[in-house]
Parts: sequence; C-alpha cells; structure tokens
Amino acid sequence: MKFTINRSAFLNSLADVQRAISSKTTIPILTGVKIIANNEGLTLTGSDSDISIEAFIPVEDEKNQLEIMETGGIILQARFFNEIVRKLPDDKMTIEVLDHFQTLITSASASFTINGLDPNNYPHLPVIDSNESFILNVNLFKQVISQTVIATSTHESRPILTGVNIVIENNTLSAVATDSHRLSQRIIPLEMSEEQARQKYKIIIPGKSLIELSKILEEDAETAEMMITENQVLFKTENLYFYTRLLEGIYPETQRLIPDTSSTSVVFNATSLLGSIERASLLSHEGKNNVVKLSVSKDKVEISGNSPEIGNVQEEIHFQSFQGEEIELSFNPDYMKDALRTFGQSDILVKFTSPIRPFVIVPSEDGKEFVQLITPVRTF
Amino acid sequence: MKFTINRSAFLNSLADVQRAISSKTTIPILTGVKIIANNEGLTLTGSDSDISIEAFIPVEDEKNQLEIMETGGIILQARFFNEIVRKLPDDKMTIEVLDHFQTLITSASASFTINGLDPNNYPHLPVIDSNESFILNVNLFKQVISQTVIATSTHESRPILTGVNIVIENNTLSAVATDSHRLSQRIIPLEMSEEQARQKYKIIIPGKSLIELSKILEEDAETAEMMITENQVLFKTENLYFYTRLLEGIYPETQRLIPDTSSTSVVFNATSLLGSIERASLLSHEGKNNVVKLSVSKDKVEISGNSPEIGNVQEEIHFQSFQGEEIELSFNPDYMKDALRTFGQSDILVKFTSPIRPFVIVPSEDGKEFVQLITPVRTF
Repeated sequence: MKFTINRSAFLNSLADVQRAISSKTTIPILTGVKIIANNEGLTLTGSDSDISIEAFIPVEDEKNQLEIMETGGIILQARFFNEIVRKLPDDKMTIEVLDHFQTLITSASASFTINGLDPNNYPHLPVIDSNESFILNVNLFKQVISQTVIATSTHESRPILTGVNIVIENNTLSAVATDSHRLSQRIIPLEMSEEQARQKYKIIIPGKSLIELSKILEEDAETAEMMITENQVLFKTENLYFYTRLLEGIYPETQRLIPDTSSTSVVFNATSLLGSIERASLLSHEGKNNVVKLSVSKDKVEISGNSPEIGNVQEEIHFQSFQGEEIELSFNPDYMKDALRTFGQSDILVKFTSPIRPFVIVPSEDGKEFVQLITPVRTF
Repeated sequence: MKFTINRSAFLNSLADVQRAISSKTTIPILTGVKIIANNEGLTLTGSDSDISIEAFIPVEDEKNQLEIMETGGIILQARFFNEIVRKLPDDKMTIEVLDHFQTLITSASASFTINGLDPNNYPHLPVIDSNESFILNVNLFKQVISQTVIATSTHESRPILTGVNIVIENNTLSAVATDSHRLSQRIIPLEMSEEQARQKYKIIIPGKSLIELSKILEEDAETAEMMITENQVLFKTENLYFYTRLLEGIYPETQRLIPDTSSTSVVFNATSLLGSIERASLLSHEGKNNVVKLSVSKDKVEISGNSPEIGNVQEEIHFQSFQGEEIELSFNPDYMKDALRTFGQSDILVKFTSPIRPFVIVPSEDGKEFVQLITPVRTF
C-alpha cells in the first residue's frame, strides 16, 4: 500500500473512526485503525466491538488530494498514529507499507517508521443485508437522541434500560428511554414504504452508541439511511458507516406510565426555570438528600433547598399561567435540569397530579410529540 | 456587615483571591474567603499560608456599584460561595451578616442563607514594614517568570531548587532556576535608589508562587511594587496585594555552570526547531529512554528518535548558519521543548561544547541577558 493525501482531510476521517476506538479494549487489535487503499479511495475502520465506524475518502473528491500509488492495507495503533499525523510539518503526507508491516510516514523532511499489523487479522464487520431501510432527517434525529438519552440508565443492573427503545410503525418513529425514576419520549414522522407500513419494527439502541452517533452525524448531511437487522443497526451517510449492536430483551411497557390527566398545570419559560433549579440545587448537592422542594399556588411558585450543615436557599419563580389546585412536592433537581435543557429557550407546560405521582413536562405549544416525565421524591 | 455590589466586579476580585485558596489545606478556616467591609470598600482575602492574596474593591470606583450599609466582616467557604455568586440571577447582589455568622445573600427574587465563620479567627497576614521596595515593569517581570520557572525542580528532595533565585544589585535583577539537569537565567534592568545600589539583595521565591503571581498580574497594570522582608515578599498593584513566603537556605552557585566558550554554533528559528523536536519526541515518549539524538554538521542537521517496540523517526532540520565542528549528542526532548517555547518565534543561537557537556540556547541577537542551558544525556 502506498498513497499521498491532504493531511487535514485524512485527519477528519481519522477523528471520525477514532470515536469507536477505545484504549481500554481487551482485544489489542482494536486499539488500531485499519486503513485499506483501493483504486476508488481509502477506507478507515475503527471498532470497539459494540460500535464500528467506517469512513471512506474517495479519490474523486479533489479536496482530498488523494493519490493511490499501490493498493493494500495496514493496521496502525490509533492514538499514536493520530499524534504523528497531527504533528507532521507539511499539508501533504505519504504513507507506505514496507516489509513485515513496517509503515513509513513521510511529510516534508520528516519521516516516521512504525510497526503495523496485518489487516487480514482485523475482525469482520457485520454484513448488513437488509431491505429494512429508512431515511432519517439528520437534524431531527439528533434532536430525538439528545432529548431521550438523558433518561437512559447508567447502571448495568438492568442493561435493557441503558438503551433507547425505538418503535417504528404507521409512518412514525417513537423513541423512549427511562431509568425508572424519569422517562423521555419523542415521536417524529418517518416515511415508510407500503410494505414497511404493514409491519412494526422494534429495536433497542444502547444510549452510548446514540451519543457517539450524534457527535459523528454532521450538520451538513441532511439525511442518513438507517438499516435494521436482527442484532445490528447501520446508519449510513455519504462517506460514513456507523454500526452498533442492539440490546437484546424486551423493553418494559412505558405508555401506561405517562398520566393522561392532571390536577395542576403551570406554564414556565424553560430557561428561566432552569436557572432557578440550578440555584436551588447548589445547596441540595452539598447535603445528603439531593432534593429540592417546589410549592405551587395561584399567587406564587416557590422553590427551596436546604442542607442543615450549610444553609438554605429559596426563590420565587416567575410563571406565565396557572390552572388547578395548589400542590407541594419534592424532586431530584438533576433530573429536572436534564429535562429542562432539552427544551431550549421555549415555554413549557408542567402538569402535576399528586406529590407522589410522576409529573410531566411538555412543550406549551404541542404536548403530544415530546414528553419528559419525573417521579417526585417522597419526603414525608 | 451589609453591602450591595455589582456581581461581576465582585466575582473578578473573588477569582483573584481564590487563586491562593486550596481545598486541600489542613487548616479548615483557610478554605474560606475573608470579606471585610469598611467605609472605603471591601477587602477580600485568601491564603494557603504559603501564598496570601488580598483584593480591595473601592467604593469610589463607580463600576463596582458598591454601597456599604454596615461595616463588619465574615468568612465564607470559598468554593461554594463562588458557585452561588456565579449563579445569582441579577447583575447586583446584597450580602448581609445576620446573627451567629449566618449570612444572607440576595439577588432579585433568590435568597441564600449560609453559615459563615468569625473573621477574627482568620490568621494574620505578615506585616511588611520595609524600605526595600522596588518598582517592577509588569510585562517584563512576567517574562522573567515564564522564562525561568520552567527550570525549577518539582521534587522536594532539594527544596531550594523548587524556587527561582533572584539577585538584585547594580541596577539589575537576575533570576536563575535549575533542577540540576537544566538551567534558565534572565537578567533585566531595575531602578534602585542610591542607598539600595550599595547593597545586594538575594531572595529565593517558590516557583509555584511565581506561577500564581504571573496569572494574577494583569496586563493592564504597567508596574508593580515589590517589597522584601526577611522571609516574605509582597507584590503590590493598585488594588491587589500578593504575599509569598521565601525559601530559606543558600542557593547553589550557578554562574560557573554556564560555559564561556563553545566549539559549535548553529542558528535556528525557535518555532521551526520546536516543531521538529515535538515530532522526534513522539517516539521517545513511548519508549523507555526519553531521549532524542541530534547530529550537526556543516551540511546537515538531523534529529532522530526511536523506540524499539514502536519504530523510529528522523528529520532534517533547517538552520540559518553553522560554525565550528561536527557534533552528535542526545538529550531529553521535554527540556528542549520547554526551553524553546520561552523564545517565541525568534531566532536562536545554540552553542555546543561536547556531547557530554551542557549546551546553551540564547537569542541570536543578544545572548547576554537570557540563557537556557541543557545537560545532554550520555548514551554511550
């Protein structure tokens, strides 16, 4: 293998595949990046066996200044190789595989010779041979990810809850996550073929995979193709393939957890409520119980927190409108902060039922497609 | 004590004194910031007993929007207090000490009540009653600090070497640091009174203190006053007092370490040489011996590094001029990188004597006031 390439184009693709490469892996070959050169271009691959990412750098795109002098492949230790490429002196670089997988990297008058590994020993990526393919709007799907992953569990005691449950049917995609204390649900429209519309697709994607996917999906790619198989899902954009394994098992029924009715409804601005919760949580974080108290009446909404060792905080919160009964309840402010951040600067409607039953937060304009739910903490 | 103040003006001074406050201190009261209000303004104090910083916020400066309603004082836990002040909702805030050192912090509709401590229990700062006062040019002195602290030792085995040795005599200030593998020396002019000019002042300031001092000395303060006593030095700008203890003991004689003659002289550009050393050090860092090899002849200057497990690197280095004999030597690239960074983008003269004797780096224009010295590593 021998090629010359524009260094920053190469670095961009290398950074993409490195998202999948963990230095903590128990499989040494996976600390490496696989580079394959054929006449069409370069393919870089990184994997931690949960996620695999493949980036293609085409010869035909002139920005890449890619010239393949000899096809072939190599595996190079990713972290170290990246450092070398970043520090090279010139805009262009040449990589050449010598005997015994030794690899020569040259740029201007600098030359590195480093030991590589046989690319044939790299694990095979899953073969995705599926007709179950859907076209996603990238911006919208990134929204879905950021709004739901916050509620995934980080504990491995119930592995299924570390994922986001995605159900595709009737031209909609519904995403739900819950760690059993809180829940996030977002529904978006999705185009399906007539044949697909007759079926129902259910997959559970690990939250961590979605976070990496979100980082790698570029704002400038408008759409991505999602292909589903039994235990893998592949997201494809023009030059990037993102594979992740799926979680196995049955996701708990969540629809019944979201209350239909409420006894108290208050409209707030999300940003200003977030500020108040952040202040109240300063003291609860220092104490033993990470809890703040909200008391809501038609004249006054007040938040308070206290830590016997340190002190207390209270603040009257501005609200747009109030309907229903007075209520007083306590909750974990961190859940509330996570939830509020997913609404940006918009106005929100908070609906309470009782001090011990979950309350929900929805956009004040349209509360059907997006719901955040939080279970209060019983303090009495 | 009760006052209102502009929150960002207060935060700026709080950030300054917090540089001296360590959360790791064994003296609990020193995790707090002391706030004293008198009719002229507020004084904030932080200390870790090595360094103490006092910031004054005058009433007369209208930017501060400071109004003292009641004089007095309090000590508040610094980290936590800072978080509260940063998160307050309004531009202005009010602080009021209630009974039992409870302190009420209010801003718009938010109010915090936190437990404080009696300010009378705060350790007394050293009294600097000295005629030995010098006026420093802030920019120049910050240069002296950044150019010398790199060579201070970080090992406590020889505590004296963790400081910078400052000698003031004959209208010059000379600063020297060495960790016994390398040495930095910088000399600057200093105005002295006739009486001072008849004396010689020697102090050893801890490197850590100088790093903090450098961060706190603002670019817009043109001068600072330095006042010396037997075991403390005080740096004063308009509203800031920075105290540090001095290191006790005799600093080793360093002048004889700097060679007068050389057998090889090469002129490089500091930035471009730094790039080459950084590349060569990528491989030496991975190996067991952190060493790179430089070979210098009239036709070619080459740097190389290698790590048997990983590979090797070599690069021909561009140089402006060469004089003297061929030489080949090895050194720790990290020392070289530290030294080269202190020269910015300028041209430098590197003077070698022998592969086992220290070499020096000086500005190519004027090599008397600033010297970096590095001892080679013997590899044969």
